[in-house]
Amino acid sequence: MTTATRIVLASRPKGDATLDDFRTETAQIPAPEDGELGLRTIWLSLDPYMRGRMNDGPSYAAATEIGEVMTGEVVAEVTESRDPRFVAGDIVLARIGWTTHGIVRGAEARKLDPDLAPVSTALGVLGMPGQTAWVGLNEILKMQRGETLVVGAATGAVGGVAGQLAKRAGLKTVGIAGGSEKCAYAVENLGYDVCLDHRDPDLAQELEALTPQGVDCYFENVGGKVLEAVLPRMNQDGRIAICGMVAWYSPEGLQDPPTLPPVWRTILTKRLRVQGFLVFDHADKLQPFLDEVGPLVGGGDLHYRESVAEGLEAAPQAFLDMLKGGNFGKQLVRVGADA
Amino acid sequence: MTTATRIVLASRPKGDATLDDFRTETAQIPAPEDGELGLRTIWLSLDPYMRGRMNDGPSYAAATEIGEVMTGEVVAEVTESRDPRFVAGDIVLARIGWTTHGIVRGAEARKLDPDLAPVSTALGVLGMPGQTAWVGLNEILKMQRGETLVVGAATGAVGGVAGQLAKRAGLKTVGIAGGSEKCAYAVENLGYDVCLDHRDPDLAQELEALTPQGVDCYFENVGGKVLEAVLPRMNQDGRIAICGMVAWYSPEGLQDPPTLPPVWRTILTKRLRVQGFLVFDHADKLQPFLDEVGPLVGGGDLHYRESVAEGLEAAPQAFLDMLKGGNFGKQLVRVGADA
Repeated sequence: MTTATRIVLASRPKGDATLDDFRTETAQIPAPEDGELGLRTIWLSLDPYMRGRMNDGPSYAAATEIGEVMTGEVVAEVTESRDPRFVAGDIVLARIGWTTHGIVRGAEARKLDPDLAPVSTALGVLGMPGQTAWVGLNEILKMQRGETLVVGAATGAVGGVAGQLAKRAGLKTVGIAGGSEKCAYAVENLGYDVCLDHRDPDLAQELEALTPQGVDCYFENVGGKVLEAVLPRMNQDGRIAICGMVAWYSPEGLQDPPTLPPVWRTILTKRLRVQGFLVFDHADKLQPFLDEVGPLVGGGDLHYRESVAEGLEAAPQAFLDMLKGGNFGKQLVRVGADA
Repeated sequence: MTTATRIVLASRPKGDATLDDFRTETAQIPAPEDGELGLRTIWLSLDPYMRGRMNDGPSYAAATEIGEVMTGEVVAEVTESRDPRFVAGDIVLARIGWTTHGIVRGAEARKLDPDLAPVSTALGVLGMPGQTAWVGLNEILKMQRGETLVVGAATGAVGGVAGQLAKRAGLKTVGIAGGSEKCAYAVENLGYDVCLDHRDPDLAQELEALTPQGVDCYFENVGGKVLEAVLPRMNQDGRIAICGMVAWYSPEGLQDPPTLPPVWRTILTKRLRVQGFLVFDHADKLQPFLDEVGPLVGGGDLHYRESVAEGLEAAPQAFLDMLKGGNFGKQLVRVGADA
């Protein structure tokens, strides 16, 4: 038996999530059975989608139950293997949640090669967020050279990859991010042609001035005022890939929401295609994504940034901060030492 | 010179359109010049899109100017031809608007064959509305055998064709129409598996009970309460083709509109594809459409219904009635005698 520290959902948020909605507890983890691996977490990934799991009601995944460990993906060391494809000391990607130790079926873990890139990248630029960017651009937006792309949350784990891949594909890239520091980083490090601050009260006018050719593709992570600024700029036959809407994940952001009819009308009159997507439906694109993006990361040609919270106990506050835009790059929690 | 009676836009509607927004006047039509045809209107088509043209501001087509003839498509007899491809007595389809007589370039007219089907069908089941149904089902919704389709305005010029073509393609078809008479007609004559009355206060619950497998495709002509009832029934990977939103064309319909965030969330969590389209962008599909649907109409295998207002002067009232759902089938105006 191993003693694990883990963070469970204590209560469903009423309004904005707070620290009180989480509880830290310890649990005894049994030894792995046949086909299973015992894991010690090194890195935990924090992602905006987790906020949805805290609510009750239908979503694209089952809600986390009260008292259940918060779901999430980790990079972990195999401490004991009962699956012949793994040995103790291997580094794997697995979904054991917000916990220092756990058990996973070998079939549900993916072995990582620490020589290719730092293993934390399997949670970010070479993981689910990076693949989300790749799928959004190639499968949903079907980006074309010469088009103009707007990326909401431009410096986030998804947006940062999307902007760089689109730029490499010959698009004009317009980022939207929170604050001048992120905007400067978006242009200087991520190669956006331009980046606007979503807090700018003149966002819509600025965007209009900076997109004289209109907008062909919008990578939607945000909703809210950003969406309201982008919609009037959409060109005929434009595409919107809905990947998230973090501005609308909290009740505060839902005050004074836009109404549907003018949006529906814009979709009709401009013949837009608006499509929601989840990377989990595109597992068959993992290999094409890794084949393209892996060498770019390995060769230092794709920039990424990580925001690290120290220790599992720091996860709830880091998560709440991220929902408010307090992170800068991919949000990770350092749960345990490197192998 | 020929004296034409025509109806012009007298003023832009403030709120709902009224008779005062139209004015009947006479005008002298010159003889056709080289390459032109002189026309005498037999049938005028009334279509919901015309309401949008009465407003100022951007839409998918230029607004009609104050004092300008209301735009619209007609079936007309050629009274004088200066284009060698036509002779006097030919029946053509042309866009000369709400007028008894007009001039058109031969290149912009299409000759009709009165032996294939009644020429009025070129404005309905074999015209723009029919092609809209065909394009929406095949190009936008990409309907698949076995799926469930909901059609708003199920007995309208577009919806009536959409329901029948989808049924022939092996879909389950659910119509939504205004009133029990239209609903009975939808099932008995148009072959819908079931039809619901959009005025039913329990519309959402009725729809839920009647779509145990959910909804894969929604042919959106309506917006409003119909959309609000359909959205929660959409299946994962469902498609919505936005063709119109007649419930939101009037200020009355825009009272207490739905808000955007829950709709955006539904598009994301259900991975919906929502796409606006206009048949004018799909001119290359005219021939495939006619090849498929022409024989069905000629052979009596596709049902259609026309609602006829007598005389050009009746057009404004018939148009206003149509916007409120007062028509039953394709709305035409009998402007002149058959050739």
